[in-house]
Amino acid sequence: MLHEIQGSHIIAQTPFDDRGAVDAASIDSLVAFYLKHGADGFVVGGVSGEGGKLTAAEAELVTRRFIAGAAGKPVIVGVSNPGTAQLAQLTAQAMDLGAAGVMIAPPAGLRTEEELLSYFATVFGLIGDVPVVLQDFPGSTGVWMSVPSILKLIEAHPQIQVVKQEDLPSLEKISRLRAGGGRRVAILTGNNGLYLPQELGRGIDGPMAGFSHPEMLSGVWRLHQKGEVEAAHDLFDCYLPLLNYEAQGFWGVAARKEVLRRRGAIRHATMRQPGPKLTARHQAELDLLVRRVERAVAARG
Amino acid sequence: MLHEIQGSHIIAQTPFDDRGAVDAASIDSLVAFYLKHGADGFVVGGVSGEGGKLTAAEAELVTRRFIAGAAGKPVIVGVSNPGTAQLAQLTAQAMDLGAAGVMIAPPAGLRTEEELLSYFATVFGLIGDVPVVLQDFPGSTGVWMSVPSILKLIEAHPQIQVVKQEDLPSLEKISRLRAGGGRRVAILTGNNGLYLPQELGRGIDGPMAGFSHPEMLSGVWRLHQKGEVEAAHDLFDCYLPLLNYEAQGFWGVAARKEVLRRRGAIRHATMRQPGPKLTARHQAELDLLVRRVERAVAARG
Amino acid sequence: MLHEIQGSHIIAQTPFDDRGAVDAASIDSLVAFYLKHGADGFVVGGVSGEGGKLTAAEAELVTRRFIAGAAGKPVIVGVSNPGTAQLAQLTAQAMDLGAAGVMIAPPAGLRTEEELLSYFATVFGLIGDVPVVLQDFPGSTGVWMSVPSILKLIEAHPQIQVVKQEDLPSLEKISRLRAGGGRRVAILTGNNGLYLPQELGRGIDGPMAGFSHPEMLSGVWRLHQKGEVEAAHDLFDCYLPLLNYEAQGFWGVAARKEVLRRRGAIRHATMRQPGPKLTARHQAELDLLVRRVERAVAARG
Amino acid sequence: MLHEIQGSHIIAQTPFDDRGAVDAASIDSLVAFYLKHGADGFVVGGVSGEGGKLTAAEAELVTRRFIAGAAGKPVIVGVSNPGTAQLAQLTAQAMDLGAAGVMIAPPAGLRTEEELLSYFATVFGLIGDVPVVLQDFPGSTGVWMSVPSILKLIEAHPQIQVVKQEDLPSLEKISRLRAGGGRRVAILTGNNGLYLPQELGRGIDGPMAGFSHPEMLSGVWRLHQKGEVEAAHDLFDCYLPLLNYEAQGFWGVAARKEVLRRRGAIRHATMRQPGPKLTARHQAELDLLVRRVERAVAARG
Repeated sequence: MLHEIQGSHIIAQTPFDDRGAVDAASIDSLVAFYLKHGADGFVVGGVSGEGGKLTAAEAELVTRRFIAGAAGKPVIVGVSNPGTAQLAQLTAQAMDLGAAGVMIAPPAGLRTEEELLSYFATVFGLIGDVPVVLQDFPGSTGVWMSVPSILKLIEAHPQIQVVKQEDLPSLEKISRLRAGGGRRVAILTGNNGLYLPQELGRGIDGPMAGFSHPEMLSGVWRLHQKGEVEAAHDLFDCYLPLLNYEAQGFWGVAARKEVLRRRGAIRHATMRQPGPKLTARHQAELDLLVRRVERAVAARG
Repeated sequence: MLHEIQGSHIIAQTPFDDRGAVDAASIDSLVAFYLKHGADGFVVGGVSGEGGKLTAAEAELVTRRFIAGAAGKPVIVGVSNPGTAQLAQLTAQAMDLGAAGVMIAPPAGLRTEEELLSYFATVFGLIGDVPVVLQDFPGSTGVWMSVPSILKLIEAHPQIQVVKQEDLPSLEKISRLRAGGGRRVAILTGNNGLYLPQELGRGIDGPMAGFSHPEMLSGVWRLHQKGEVEAAHDLFDCYLPLLNYEAQGFWGVAARKEVLRRRGAIRHATMRQPGPKLTARHQAELDLLVRRVERAVAARG
Repeated sequence: MLHEIQGSHIIAQTPFDDRGAVDAASIDSLVAFYLKHGADGFVVGGVSGEGGKLTAAEAELVTRRFIAGAAGKPVIVGVSNPGTAQLAQLTAQAMDLGAAGVMIAPPAGLRTEEELLSYFATVFGLIGDVPVVLQDFPGSTGVWMSVPSILKLIEAHPQIQVVKQEDLPSLEKISRLRAGGGRRVAILTGNNGLYLPQELGRGIDGPMAGFSHPEMLSGVWRLHQKGEVEAAHDLFDCYLPLLNYEAQGFWGVAARKEVLRRRGAIRHATMRQPGPKLTARHQAELDLLVRRVERAVAARG
Repeated sequence: MLHEIQGSHIIAQTPFDDRGAVDAASIDSLVAFYLKHGADGFVVGGVSGEGGKLTAAEAELVTRRFIAGAAGKPVIVGVSNPGTAQLAQLTAQAMDLGAAGVMIAPPAGLRTEEELLSYFATVFGLIGDVPVVLQDFPGSTGVWMSVPSILKLIEAHPQIQVVKQEDLPSLEKISRLRAGGGRRVAILTGNNGLYLPQELGRGIDGPMAGFSHPEMLSGVWRLHQKGEVEAAHDLFDCYLPLLNYEAQGFWGVAARKEVLRRRGAIRHATMRQPGPKLTARHQAELDLLVRRVERAVAARG
């Protein structure tokens, strides 16, 4: 069941070839790369996965291919859509393809708790009994959900089995969700994992984020599970300078794809237009940061 | 050619039956109603037409049916979409179905002229040689386009043949677009037609709006064309109290559908969820306003 | 007591001379003009009164002069401020000058009910026992307050004696606030009075708006009080075309000041910079609208 | 001259005592602490300095006291204000008190380049010949200034001597401003210094940021000046986990004040209401992070 989900869930990149077409072969190598580095599950169709740039047919292809490669690990599909009818259709399609659940963020334009509760009553009425990750990402959606509002949604809709918490600052919000009582859901956190050690201390069930070095996400999670808090910090700090660099919006995604390419996970670092293109200066910044990360990891032993 | 477009272009409602399904028979009666009251063209898939609530298959059905009934008048299809690949696909589909062109608004999140120009360079590269209505509707999109920016877009992209101007206040913007020189495009105005007499005085080519009494839109246009400015104001003022009532966002759309139902244009006033439902109080307000409009129109003779 | 406030409350313009300085003599003539046309009270320092363009010393002068001329009618002072310490200081000063109360809107940036309740707990703790108009104007502030949130604020803070309701669409919100139970507060409505007849039918206690013809605001109010609903609509409709023209943001305010100048209420129509300047085209539009309003009012007899 | 400004400029905190009053004695110790750790200048009245919570009299006191303690280093005063008359008055007051210049961000609500250029033409006309830091901080103001817009402002207004660049992602923007030609201005960067090493590589003249360990800001700057890029990264990376923690909006500011208190720079960590209060959990997170930073710095030798 999704509400017992744990561990390191990867917001997967969508690989494109040098002409901008979906690169299906690179999906296979990418999912293998993620699994090799400890992934416990995947999200496709997310914002940083460039899900919004895909046609319906491409989105289906990407989902199908990820599920095929995922070795049974759960694949969650982002289905947020300004239209509820389209959202319901995308949800049905995702579940037909074998997804473990869908991820839904409220659409831009909801402004009060009433509008929020009304929106989700419509949505959950339409999609039926499907496991849902409720995404709390106001920096992207412009919709702010308070802790009491989220708790009301959880109580009203048993489909919500996970909250993806990426409202910055996240720490108090996590503590209050955990203290809120009611039905237990899993809490995973995004925001590129920038506060992962503290978030684990606040009681989350793992990261749900993208990074060029997914071994950091899974490694920090496993060390924390074993109670080795200082070691988890040590590992996290080795990667933090690069993680921070990859947190620069779509420029960060471009950097991440370039590092994934260098590591052999995908064949091309192409981002579909409209999107940024790295310059020589960015490449030099990445050279330095990656070299320093490798040195720090090696020194840690 | 679309850049010579003139007259009264209707932002068409989408009729739903009492269970919320698209009511195809009501499309036929609605388009006939619009034509009978002087429509010179149509827009389907717009915001107030609830285009965002349709699945892809429904949107195709609605477009097809409107074009079938339009008696050769131009039908423009709204294809704005956060994803450029999807936008291109919707555009190709609309043109295949026989649309006269497509309407595109910039997506939420564009913030500077540079981002705007870059976005449309991508879009116009993808869609090819298709006649486009550029929609300037910042109250809905959150994207503000200055007059110089719009003029740059017109010069760069010959596909832009019409500007739908609905940035409030609209009057100076219309005057400045007209004074801007460069290639001539048609300018049509939305905003429910609330400033139609003044906008006509500023040099627009007609309204592109929705209203339960489309005879006002076409009537004011034709009187103004004949130079009968006072008579155009007289006609407009008869309807203004109801027009103002229908300008209340989606509540106004619900009122408009109810009046269209009362007039026999559609069978049901249903709005698809999520959307407002009129109360007895609203019905009484409409009773009074419609009665007063009818009296004023009759008194005018 | 402010919670028993009724009638027509004018959002007062601030007159400037042709060099942009506060024109104190015009304040005296303006307040006399408002009183002559039926004003039951005033608000100074509001958004459309250009309160945000005044220095502290100027704001004090304007408040003092309005109170001096108001013949004992209540003067409410807008004190919204991003800083709570400054807000408290402005409140104390306004009450010292003889204001009947202050008007407070939540500052931009509040996003959830929790933040809202917390903000006002701080504010009401600081200002003490002062009568307050709570301004619900999300189009300007970007802060959306739901009906349950407003009712919670009313229950928590006895200082709130009036709600100025100008969230568009306003009608259902008014009905729900009135049906909400709890302590009764006055409800006055802004939004340039565009929905005044319907709002009166929903149970408000009067308009709180600006208009170049304040006799419309007081006249509609008094007719409605006497139960003459059709007559109230008749009067309203005479003015609606001009009212609608004055509803064009700061362009509308510029038009309003020009009409007030033409009517002898103020000596100069100057708006302080930054602000719009009417062109010859605007003047011609106003000529036509004012002439038509005068004709309609005369025809009504 | 301000356009030759370089080095580490501190966004200064405002110390409050345990009752929330300005703690003047702590200003003296705080400025001494900053100087001891390498500050080359100061900004008072900034967002993270809680400038928006001060009354006019308090703001004057804080400015006066900072200038008195600054040992001749330049003190810049934040004077952004929604009202241009108030902004002009604050500017005159700051310069009278001995400020080296003022910092101005465009107010919320400006949406196109035209509005931006018009706003600053008004402002620079009012304030006269005063050295200005133009603050580019869209995450706080909601106003996006493109590189061409900023270059136009620099050419039009010789008062602009510094650009404070804190539009995230910042790196390409810095490179493009530097490549933009025209009159040279200093570029300093905010955003808590999170990208300081890369920003220095892009050609900035130093940080303009707050941090509980200002020796990092000055140290990284000086190492970079000497061409010791790897050493600059080494130093930066020691502090990055804590820097990242202090980047959590006003929660981060609360953490920063607490660490400044622990280090003896101020007597109380109080934030003025409304503002967050650290919990025992936050204190424990800070204990761990500070201990780790100290260990890393010591290990570096």
